[in-house]
Amino acid sequence: MTVTPEEFRVAGHEMVDWIADFRLRLPDLPVRSQVAPGQVRAALEGPPPELPERFADVLADLDRVVVPGITQIQSPGYFAWFPSNASLASVLGDMASSGLGALGITWQSAPALTEVEEVVTDWLRELCGLAPQWRGAIHDSASSACFVAMLVARERASGMSGERGGLQAEPAPLVVYASPQAHSSVPKAVLLAGFGRDNLRLVDVDPATYAMDPEALRAAMARDAAAGRVPAAVVASVGTTGTTAVDPVAAVVEVAAEYGAWVHVDAAMAGSAMLLPECRHLFDGVDGADSLSWNPHKWLGTVLDTSLLYVRDVAHLTDVMSTNPSYLRSAVDGEVTQYKDWGIPLGRRFRALKLWFHLRLDGAEAIRARLRRDLDNAGWLAAQAGATPGWEVLAPVPLQTVCLRHVPERLRDPSGTVTDLEALDTHTLAWVERVNATGRVFLTAALLDGRWMARVSIGAEPTERIDVETLWALAQEAAQAAD
Amino acid sequence: MTVTPEEFRVAGHEMVDWIADFRLRLPDLPVRSQVAPGQVRAALEGPPPELPERFADVLADLDRVVVPGITQIQSPGYFAWFPSNASLASVLGDMASSGLGALGITWQSAPALTEVEEVVTDWLRELCGLAPQWRGAIHDSASSACFVAMLVARERASGMSGERGGLQAEPAPLVVYASPQAHSSVPKAVLLAGFGRDNLRLVDVDPATYAMDPEALRAAMARDAAAGRVPAAVVASVGTTGTTAVDPVAAVVEVAAEYGAWVHVDAAMAGSAMLLPECRHLFDGVDGADSLSWNPHKWLGTVLDTSLLYVRDVAHLTDVMSTNPSYLRSAVDGEVTQYKDWGIPLGRRFRALKLWFHLRLDGAEAIRARLRRDLDNAGWLAAQAGATPGWEVLAPVPLQTVCLRHVPERLRDPSGTVTDLEALDTHTLAWVERVNATGRVFLTAALLDGRWMARVSIGAEPTERIDVETLWALAQEAAQAAD
Repeated sequence: MTVTPEEFRVAGHEMVDWIADFRLRLPDLPVRSQVAPGQVRAALEGPPPELPERFADVLADLDRVVVPGITQIQSPGYFAWFPSNASLASVLGDMASSGLGALGITWQSAPALTEVEEVVTDWLRELCGLAPQWRGAIHDSASSACFVAMLVARERASGMSGERGGLQAEPAPLVVYASPQAHSSVPKAVLLAGFGRDNLRLVDVDPATYAMDPEALRAAMARDAAAGRVPAAVVASVGTTGTTAVDPVAAVVEVAAEYGAWVHVDAAMAGSAMLLPECRHLFDGVDGADSLSWNPHKWLGTVLDTSLLYVRDVAHLTDVMSTNPSYLRSAVDGEVTQYKDWGIPLGRRFRALKLWFHLRLDGAEAIRARLRRDLDNAGWLAAQAGATPGWEVLAPVPLQTVCLRHVPERLRDPSGTVTDLEALDTHTLAWVERVNATGRVFLTAALLDGRWMARVSIGAEPTERIDVETLWALAQEAAQAAD
Repeated sequence: MTVTPEEFRVAGHEMVDWIADFRLRLPDLPVRSQVAPGQVRAALEGPPPELPERFADVLADLDRVVVPGITQIQSPGYFAWFPSNASLASVLGDMASSGLGALGITWQSAPALTEVEEVVTDWLRELCGLAPQWRGAIHDSASSACFVAMLVARERASGMSGERGGLQAEPAPLVVYASPQAHSSVPKAVLLAGFGRDNLRLVDVDPATYAMDPEALRAAMARDAAAGRVPAAVVASVGTTGTTAVDPVAAVVEVAAEYGAWVHVDAAMAGSAMLLPECRHLFDGVDGADSLSWNPHKWLGTVLDTSLLYVRDVAHLTDVMSTNPSYLRSAVDGEVTQYKDWGIPLGRRFRALKLWFHLRLDGAEAIRARLRRDLDNAGWLAAQAGATPGWEVLAPVPLQTVCLRHVPERLRDPSGTVTDLEALDTHTLAWVERVNATGRVFLTAALLDGRWMARVSIGAEPTERIDVETLWALAQEAAQAAD
């Protein structure tokens, strides 16, 4: 006998209370998980369960093993990687999705799954001030969205080579362009799409802003075209992972147009900023791009996995991605949107519900206020660091991420030049580790121009100014102690 | 102000009750959604919500618009496509996942997300009687899993062409083989991976069983090899979508080995049957394949999206799929599993929890009993149809799907031969539609050998013998009435 609706009712109430209690005690939990490799596994492994266990025992294991085994992304002290907020409004929507158990394979299998997705992707298009031509769909991640973009770019540049001999029969190599600051998913998508690393050009960036240099892009494309290669696609990053650098989309679009190359805009983290009119200029020219991805599951706060891919030419997208087996046909085909033809998976969850609940229960106004709070906190931190001797802000702060380095006095010569870059790297990694070991906050290090820096990425839903002040105090203490 | 933990506690309890009530009233809901194209959208669209709405209003819209707008996959009267069970045990696990808000990007971001996934994929490997060499990961769908398999097969056959000029620089075309009965995601994966339709061979099947003919596979590979092409991969389907035909995996593996071709076994639906020793023979030879995918989110009943991809050569998989940007590095890299390098997305939900809850709360024994009930029901229906004049069972019934056709007397000549195949198609589609229009059950039609048939796919969690009896009575009535 499997779990019945009435048993679910009892256990579900306990689960809800457990979640509410977990969220309330987040500030007291170590932010970075402190378990050792294999520790969680050792605590849980054994033969597969043959007989039903009590719900209380599973819940106890959540407390005993799982909670200490995760890094607390939802904590006010979380400043690592990028925000990945799981707003409780969206959690309610995800509960509805799981409980309904709808199956998104065709429109007919769940008309509401399709049409609520149309409603919410249109809402977000409007909230972002995007042109009405854009049509969106929910994917699992910006990695998948970028991969889809590379596939449709490949098929456009090759005149639908998939219907013939594939990429392997193309006479001239197709080439893709991106910033060296682009996310790791970009080269991964280029390689998986079959272009090959030899046909990926990493275009020079402005050394001060880390933004792609459109003249360097133009020159690279001209070189390839002159050599008989085909410029097929450009990925413009708005808000790179390292420093939230902003590639100049309008200029990229203009250069790409000279060669008919597809432009994909990767704004996985920064996309949320399109909701703020004062940030919208970072996306100037985006309506000239061919595809645009951003993740409400990051800063906006719709629980994972909620990644949006907008395209302007839906007909080309579905030409590349569609299938039409007899067992999926219905009388309304042709009148309806078939999201199976918009991406890689056939079967899809009802993910639109979490966006729908999130936007309706929280409202755009409150979400904007939270994003502005985070921008303000980032500005405050950058100002503090900029005004404090020994500290450097390494890149512009257009969004909510501040890139810091602390240079001890002993590593500078009288002119202020750093004398030992290896020692500086060691110092950076040491103080970051010291901060993280406190368990009170968590930030991550990354390489910039080949040297380690500390990234402070602000934007967890409960993070207030006082939490950023705590981080800044801990960073200064740790930098001093590590010196 | 966004939804707080205490507000979530109140709303979450309502949501749980709503889900329990929804599951209880499922038998009374029309199985196939009766909404018209655009109806859901029209009921919900409008400007994006600026201010928070009341939870009660969102819940009311769920009842008013969303429930009538989905086909009730969880209903006892659901016999369409394939089962897609959302067991309530797994729903509890999915609630935990959403509530925790963990972020799976690296092991460090959520060690438990990685290690619980190792535990549950090992449990399922054991329950399926697979060799210990197999290592599994959770993907969103068998489509994605098959696509990953095609990518790693491509890179093996090409000696990692991605690190050079990609597929476009390969000297000899790589070829993929599959059954014409393979799922639509197979040709889609082959095309997306860049092989091209010209390099996809649909291998002849046995006309009685619809299983791939291994001698035809051998001949096709020999022809390609003789012409200078490279047999790169074979997809063997265990449980095709049309008729649950079973390609002979052991023979396919043997033929593929002659050319070093990758063998991917697609058992999206049928994989659950590996839990039953009496069905395990359908998978004979599977331990010689290179990759195997099956979906616990189908018959087994772990709520969407839970698709497993097992591989034997993890090192090759991660060679193809890995990235290692500085911002994701940690001190334990090398000691731990990094699931980001096992598939397409970087950021992943904590999907292992729904499998973990499902197996622990229901137990394997009860799950097996349910699968056996469904097999027994399919056998019963096939026997009924086989013994009833005018009805034909069109394919073997190795699992839970029965392929039926009703041939009216007026469409047979005295020797029993069908005189008008077009009229038979019209009749089939008419009676299936008539059954579905009752709202009490839902089954789907599909083409077999170019002619329409009715597929009765048994396996919704609440479907008992009495529901199959209802379906069979409705089918007979409808076939008579449509005549």
